[in-house]
Amino acid sequence: MPDLLRSSKVVALGGGHGLAASLSALRLVCEQVTAIVTVADNGGSSGRLREDFGVLPPGDLRMALTALCDDNEWGQTWSDVLQHRFTGEGDLAGHALGNLLIVALWQLHDDPVLGLDLVGRLLSARGRVLPMAAVPLDLRAQVSGLDAHDPRATETVVGQVAIAKTRGLVESIRLEPQDPPAQPESLSAVREADHIVLGPGSWYTSVLTHLLVPELRTALAESPARKVLTLNLDMETAETRGFSATRHIETLHQAAPELAVDVVLADPTIVEDASRLSAACDTLGAQLVVAPLSQAQHTDRHDELRLAAAYRDILS
Amino acid sequence: MPDLLRSSKVVALGGGHGLAASLSALRLVCEQVTAIVTVADNGGSSGRLREDFGVLPPGDLRMALTALCDDNEWGQTWSDVLQHRFTGEGDLAGHALGNLLIVALWQLHDDPVLGLDLVGRLLSARGRVLPMAAVPLDLRAQVSGLDAHDPRATETVVGQVAIAKTRGLVESIRLEPQDPPAQPESLSAVREADHIVLGPGSWYTSVLTHLLVPELRTALAESPARKVLTLNLDMETAETRGFSATRHIETLHQAAPELAVDVVLADPTIVEDASRLSAACDTLGAQLVVAPLSQAQHTDRHDELRLAAAYRDILS
Repeated sequence: MPDLLRSSKVVALGGGHGLAASLSALRLVCEQVTAIVTVADNGGSSGRLREDFGVLPPGDLRMALTALCDDNEWGQTWSDVLQHRFTGEGDLAGHALGNLLIVALWQLHDDPVLGLDLVGRLLSARGRVLPMAAVPLDLRAQVSGLDAHDPRATETVVGQVAIAKTRGLVESIRLEPQDPPAQPESLSAVREADHIVLGPGSWYTSVLTHLLVPELRTALAESPARKVLTLNLDMETAETRGFSATRHIETLHQAAPELAVDVVLADPTIVEDASRLSAACDTLGAQLVVAPLSQAQHTDRHDELRLAAAYRDILS
Repeated sequence: MPDLLRSSKVVALGGGHGLAASLSALRLVCEQVTAIVTVADNGGSSGRLREDFGVLPPGDLRMALTALCDDNEWGQTWSDVLQHRFTGEGDLAGHALGNLLIVALWQLHDDPVLGLDLVGRLLSARGRVLPMAAVPLDLRAQVSGLDAHDPRATETVVGQVAIAKTRGLVESIRLEPQDPPAQPESLSAVREADHIVLGPGSWYTSVLTHLLVPELRTALAESPARKVLTLNLDMETAETRGFSATRHIETLHQAAPELAVDVVLADPTIVEDASRLSAACDTLGAQLVVAPLSQAQHTDRHDELRLAAAYRDILS
C-alpha cells in the first residue's frame, strides 16, 4: 500500500457490482474506504425485504461490505456466508443470508449504520459502508422509444428493476420521494474525504442516483476532495444502450452541472473518439486517464488489480 | 469458577429450553462444556427448514449455542441477532435469524459440526454444540387415552410437535429411522467426559430421545463419567401430565435399564414422596440431591445461578 494513501480518506459512491469492483480495488491501496451506497433497489431479495419490513434494500450494502472484506480466513468465511443465496422453491429461495442478517440487525438496533458497522466488524472489513439516504427510495424514469408509432413519446417507468431492463431510452430519472434525507454519516464522509470515486455501475440506477439526493449532491459539489469518475466497460446495458463514453459524461454534467471532476478514468476499449471524449472531460474540468482496467477473461468486468493500480497512480 | 472444574470435560444432553437452562448454568462453573442436542424437532422455523432443505433442525442447536455465549458485548450482540425472530406476514415470519445462518453454513460446508463451531466462535461460546445424530430424525409415540370409548387403546402420534401437545398419555416412543448414525464427535465427547448431565427438558421429546440412538445409548452406559440427571420443575407439560418425579425416573430406567446414574438433582417442590423418590433413584444407582433450583418469579423455570450452584457442588 502506498504510504501516501495509508492515511487518506477515500469515499466511493455507487451500487451493485460496479461499486463492489471499485471497493475490491480500493481496499488494496487504501486503509480507510467509505462506501456510500444507493438505496433505490426494488428487485429480488432486497425488493421482497423492503416490501415485507419497510427497510432499506440491503443487497447493495451487503455486496459493498463483502467487497471490503479482509483476505484473512475469518473474513473470507463470513463473506461467503453473507453472499450465500438460498435456492429451491421454499420461502427463503432467492434470499441472500447477508440480507437477512442485515435486516435482523436493523430490527434489533434502530440505527441502520450501527447494524452495517457490526457486519463490517464481523468481516474485518477495510472500511465502512453507509446508505446514501436514510429512507428507502424509488426511481422513476422518463423513457422514450417504447411506442412504435410515436418514437418521441415518453412513458414513466417505475423502479430500478424495470428501468435497468427497459427496451427504450432513458431520457431523465428522478427519485420518489424527491427530496429524501441523506444519511448524515454519508454527508460527513463526503465532506471529510481526501478522494472521492464515482462509478463504475449502472449509470442511471446506481451512479447518477447519488446526484438526485439534494444534500448529497451539494456536499459532493462543495467537497474539496480530488474526484475521480470511473467509466463502465460495458456500454451495452439496457439503460444506456448505444451511449458512447462521451454521452455518459454528458448525462452526468446535465444531472449536476456544478459538479467538477478531477479525473475521468476509462479503459482504452471504450475510447471511440479521443478528442470528443477529452472535450467532454473538459466540461467537467477533468483530465482523461486511459488505462487497461478489464479482466483478461471477462473483458466487460473490471479487474481488481488493474483498477487498483490505476487508482493508486491517480490518487497518490 | 472452581479450580477442580476448570479442566473438567462436561457433557450436557437434551434439547430446547431445558438444555439451554442447563448450559447457562454450566458455563458459569466449567470451561469445557459440550452440548449434545436432539435433532428430532419438526415444528416452527426448524420444521420448515428441514422440509425445504433436508437439513438437521437447527433451532435447538441455535438455542444451545446462545446459552453458551460469552457475557462480553460482542458475544451478547451476536447472541441477540441469532435469537432474533422475524415477525409479520411475509416469507420470513417465524424464522429465527440464527436458524437461517446455521443452514447457510451447512449448505456452504458439508460438515454440520464445522458450521456449528463457526457460530460458536462468533459467539465466543464457552464450549461446543453438537447434534446427537448425523441425520434429521422423527419421533413416533404410542399414546393412550385418545379414544373416549376405549381408554386402553393406543394410537401412533407422529412428530415432536404433536407428541409435545398430545391430550393422551405417552406409553412409549421411538425414532424414525430406528437406528440412526450418532454424530461421531458426540460419541467421542461422551466417551471422554468427566461429567455428564442429562435433563432437564421435555421428557420424551428432548431427554429420553438421546437413549433412542443406539450408539449414543451404549456410549452413555459405558462412559465412566459421573452422571447427573436433572429433573424438571414443571410436571404439568402435556407429554408427562400427571407424572410424579418418581415416574420420570421410572421411564428413564425402562428406556435404558443398563444406564447407571450417580446423582438425581431435584427441586424441593417436586418431591412429593421422598422415600418413594429415593427408592426410584436407587434403581439407577443414584443419590438424590434436593436443592432449590427455580427462579423467584417464574417458579417453573430453572434459575441459572441456583442451578450453577447445585452443579458446582455436585461436580466438584
